[in-house]
Amino acid sequence: MTRYAIGVDFGTESGRAVLVDVADGRQLATSVTPYRSGVIDERLPAPNQDVILLPDWALQDADDYLDVLRTAVPAVIREAAVDPADIIGIGVDVTACTMLPATADGTALSMLPAFRANPHAWVKLWKHHAAQPEADRINEVARATGQDWLDRYGGKISSEWFFAKSLQILDEAPEVYAAADRLLEATDWIVWQLTGVETRNACTAGYKAMWSKRDGFPDRAYFAALDPAFADVVDTKMRRDLHQVGERAGGLTAEAAAWTGLLPGTAVAVANVDAHVAVPAATVTEPGTMVMIMGTSTCHMVLAPDERTVPGMCGRVEDGIIPGLIGYEAGQSCVGDHFGWFVDQGLPAAYHDEARARGIDIHELLQEKAGRQVAGESGLLALDWWNGNRSILVDAAVGGLLIGATLSTTPEEVYRALIEATAYGTRVIIETLEANGVPVRDIVACGGLAEKSPLVLQIYADVTGRPFRVSASDQTPALGSAMFGAVAAGAAAGGHATIEDAARAMARLKDVVYEPSPENREAYDVLYREYVRLHDYFGRGENDVMKVLRGLRAQARTAMFPAAPVSVPA
Amino acid sequence: MTRYAIGVDFGTESGRAVLVDVADGRQLATSVTPYRSGVIDERLPAPNQDVILLPDWALQDADDYLDVLRTAVPAVIREAAVDPADIIGIGVDVTACTMLPATADGTALSMLPAFRANPHAWVKLWKHHAAQPEADRINEVARATGQDWLDRYGGKISSEWFFAKSLQILDEAPEVYAAADRLLEATDWIVWQLTGVETRNACTAGYKAMWSKRDGFPDRAYFAALDPAFADVVDTKMRRDLHQVGERAGGLTAEAAAWTGLLPGTAVAVANVDAHVAVPAATVTEPGTMVMIMGTSTCHMVLAPDERTVPGMCGRVEDGIIPGLIGYEAGQSCVGDHFGWFVDQGLPAAYHDEARARGIDIHELLQEKAGRQVAGESGLLALDWWNGNRSILVDAAVGGLLIGATLSTTPEEVYRALIEATAYGTRVIIETLEANGVPVRDIVACGGLAEKSPLVLQIYADVTGRPFRVSASDQTPALGSAMFGAVAAGAAAGGHATIEDAARAMARLKDVVYEPSPENREAYDVLYREYVRLHDYFGRGENDVMKVLRGLRAQARTAMFPAAPVSVPA
Repeated sequence: MTRYAIGVDFGTESGRAVLVDVADGRQLATSVTPYRSGVIDERLPAPNQDVILLPDWALQDADDYLDVLRTAVPAVIREAAVDPADIIGIGVDVTACTMLPATADGTALSMLPAFRANPHAWVKLWKHHAAQPEADRINEVARATGQDWLDRYGGKISSEWFFAKSLQILDEAPEVYAAADRLLEATDWIVWQLTGVETRNACTAGYKAMWSKRDGFPDRAYFAALDPAFADVVDTKMRRDLHQVGERAGGLTAEAAAWTGLLPGTAVAVANVDAHVAVPAATVTEPGTMVMIMGTSTCHMVLAPDERTVPGMCGRVEDGIIPGLIGYEAGQSCVGDHFGWFVDQGLPAAYHDEARARGIDIHELLQEKAGRQVAGESGLLALDWWNGNRSILVDAAVGGLLIGATLSTTPEEVYRALIEATAYGTRVIIETLEANGVPVRDIVACGGLAEKSPLVLQIYADVTGRPFRVSASDQTPALGSAMFGAVAAGAAAGGHATIEDAARAMARLKDVVYEPSPENREAYDVLYREYVRLHDYFGRGENDVMKVLRGLRAQARTAMFPAAPVSVPA
Repeated sequence: MTRYAIGVDFGTESGRAVLVDVADGRQLATSVTPYRSGVIDERLPAPNQDVILLPDWALQDADDYLDVLRTAVPAVIREAAVDPADIIGIGVDVTACTMLPATADGTALSMLPAFRANPHAWVKLWKHHAAQPEADRINEVARATGQDWLDRYGGKISSEWFFAKSLQILDEAPEVYAAADRLLEATDWIVWQLTGVETRNACTAGYKAMWSKRDGFPDRAYFAALDPAFADVVDTKMRRDLHQVGERAGGLTAEAAAWTGLLPGTAVAVANVDAHVAVPAATVTEPGTMVMIMGTSTCHMVLAPDERTVPGMCGRVEDGIIPGLIGYEAGQSCVGDHFGWFVDQGLPAAYHDEARARGIDIHELLQEKAGRQVAGESGLLALDWWNGNRSILVDAAVGGLLIGATLSTTPEEVYRALIEATAYGTRVIIETLEANGVPVRDIVACGGLAEKSPLVLQIYADVTGRPFRVSASDQTPALGSAMFGAVAAGAAAGGHATIEDAARAMARLKDVVYEPSPENREAYDVLYREYVRLHDYFGRGENDVMKVLRGLRAQARTAMFPAAPVSVPA
């Protein structure tokens, strides 16, 4: 008898559900629900539209997640026309760290009328960057008090992470902090809504909240040093009993069954993260093969049997991706966004006209034109730091650089230089991993950019000297969540005993392999050496012009926005 | 009785004549004749269109100059409706070094059927950059043999200059070199056509052909070291008797009188150069005030009583601009071209649409948007080297750089950063002059960019900390040529005795003064320091990535064009 599982992937702008066959991963139906409020980064939604957000803020509405459960999940069941009784499990993944305050019964604080107009009550999206002062404090105190765990995160905690965001709530909205019985990842919150039981996953705790299997969370004294009122954040707002990915979080409540059209009691997997859940869905459950989730930004995930200190990683977590292995995560904060910025802000009309006339996507046109160039032909080199550098510099305040332009430089040359720059950034990450004992033999890519950009993958293969393959599913994270749903259901119910079993059965690669081309290799080695030299010169303090520029910019903008961090009407 | 003079300014794309009142410089008529063949940089004109030119080539057709004399000059006489008998003098200026081979009777070699299909017989325009190997040889031999004159040119001779272009003819087309009884500047050639007498001006000899009043040309041994066949270039193809600017070259021939509608015998001034002739026309005949001719590129001219060695100047020539003073010339090779490139290659359609809808020029729109920013607000910094760096690095092989871009960077921010970069480049030139004993208290700007770009002038004033004024004439070089025409005619004929007298009578400034604004000063000082650091880092050999990029580009392109320097069909 055929069994099915559903995976729901909560992204930045929308949530998408897939329904797959547990035996072979075949995708029977997909449905996307855009978030009604999208990314909230200018003002709160009506009727609180007078609450203006400062630059660097990025929120989501928790109710938009429930909307996805109420629309996309029933839609895939309907479309696939399968019996809900044959759907044995559901898994979810969300971006991270995407977190919110909630009451003891799991109600998001932003859903309470008393807090609806307070932006700190809302979900802070992964790319909310307004907690930089708190991240700075977290890092300073950690260095000053010699915290061991700092090493696991490449020596620096990001403003995107859990305690930076939590501390910002305490700093700027102590009334919200006080009212929050819980501070938690959105992914755990959604699983709580599905199961009625609060469970916390070890993956986000490990990657975003400085937890490790061996040492747990940082100690009370550390949190007290950040702020005495923050001393007991773990014991009063969080939980210490964490669940490993692949476990069953619980069964679907009657209410959640009514939302989704699934049967009450259907197995729900422990919450997971979009990037991490994609690794087994891209067939990878062993060391040596990196998975790159390539979209607006890129996540790099690789497994290893042992713990190594690798500078500039986002984190390394035992059991964080696949139980029994150390999962290393690195990242590039500006990839698809980079190309998108260029198309929006730097491309003459004639290119858009040509793409329209030929009925093709503008990126397809640019890749066609850029694909006619050979390595080195443009005379351009870029540092891909338009949105800072996540790995290996862990520095949000560096900026983009383009060098070598002439009066005959064309848009397709700039476009290719931006692609190449992100490829050099990936090579830096790979070489840093290898230099520190984490081998990367080959790469599996997934995500929108991997789907649509053969030229990007070929350049990446040429620059890194490693073969690139592509995950067969066009919904790799959602497939991964469905696989974890099948594991939560277990083999006895027709699912799978382990995520490795699920990967063998359900995950596939496309046939095409992007092999490094020998012709471009020599020029790319020269260009990469130059990239590394500029990377170190501008990124490691020898010339801090990027910081000076960022400082002048902030100064000029502060003069224009002399307000408090958030402006709440009286 | 009212007397008139005519000035003819031969530019890159067209020639323009003005007819002015000798008493007060009032402009009675202007006429522009575009060159039929424009800049010849891809293939020779029909019927020789099969002769393909390599990149870096740029030619003109000598016949196009005669066309200007035959159309624009009669047109201004007609338009002004003055009696040719009242027109007492004519002066001309051309870009430099723009040179050609000719026969002993002054016929341009390209006009002879036997040579019409040979690109080396044509006029080599100032921006013909294909003589770089010859310039390299000129510099190497000069350094190796300790030539004193090298100092006068900032230590380096450009590929644009006279002997580089002449040597390229010898290297690549010895048959043209052999057939050339004369090698001469186009400006001297035009005066020859007008007067029937060969005269050579000391200005181009000084600025472009390594001549000085004290030492003459480099010696025979030096030229022989370049190539034995080049040893006698001065004595066989040039002349040693040079004429100072402001002198009378001769009277108009009957033939030239027929072309122009002027009377035979009308005084013709010694040939001059567009930038140099603009200085007195911008009211400047004394030390301390720099004249900037701002167009696609910028020329900086300043006078001083004494000879100083200033690194990176284009040249310093005694009597070169105003008799009795040392004329210093510097240059930026990419100014208006820089902004033009950006508008063509980097600007989204919406901006062009907005400009069209409002019926304004695209640069006007961008200046309006860029003008709303304060210094430092964009967080961007650029090196204005899209077309190399003429002063003070004298290096055509450096490339452009833009640093500090983020995902929120807008086109108007990039546009302003490019303007600011050219202003920093000007400040480097000013500070280098002053550090070496040539004071620059204030600036008079002229040229298309000065006419149309108040924001550019304000940013230049803010960045340099010096007031900018603008020449009143919108045809400053042509006015300058007319002034020299009036001096050639002399005071007795109703003209002027000296160029200083002519400047006092005929040259004016606009009323507006761009004063440095104190608000922007601090940020611009910070940004300028960063600019200088990047300028030195990338421009003085510490990091030669720009050369590496240029080398890879040349390598890739040579692989695509494996042909000889010029391709002449059999």
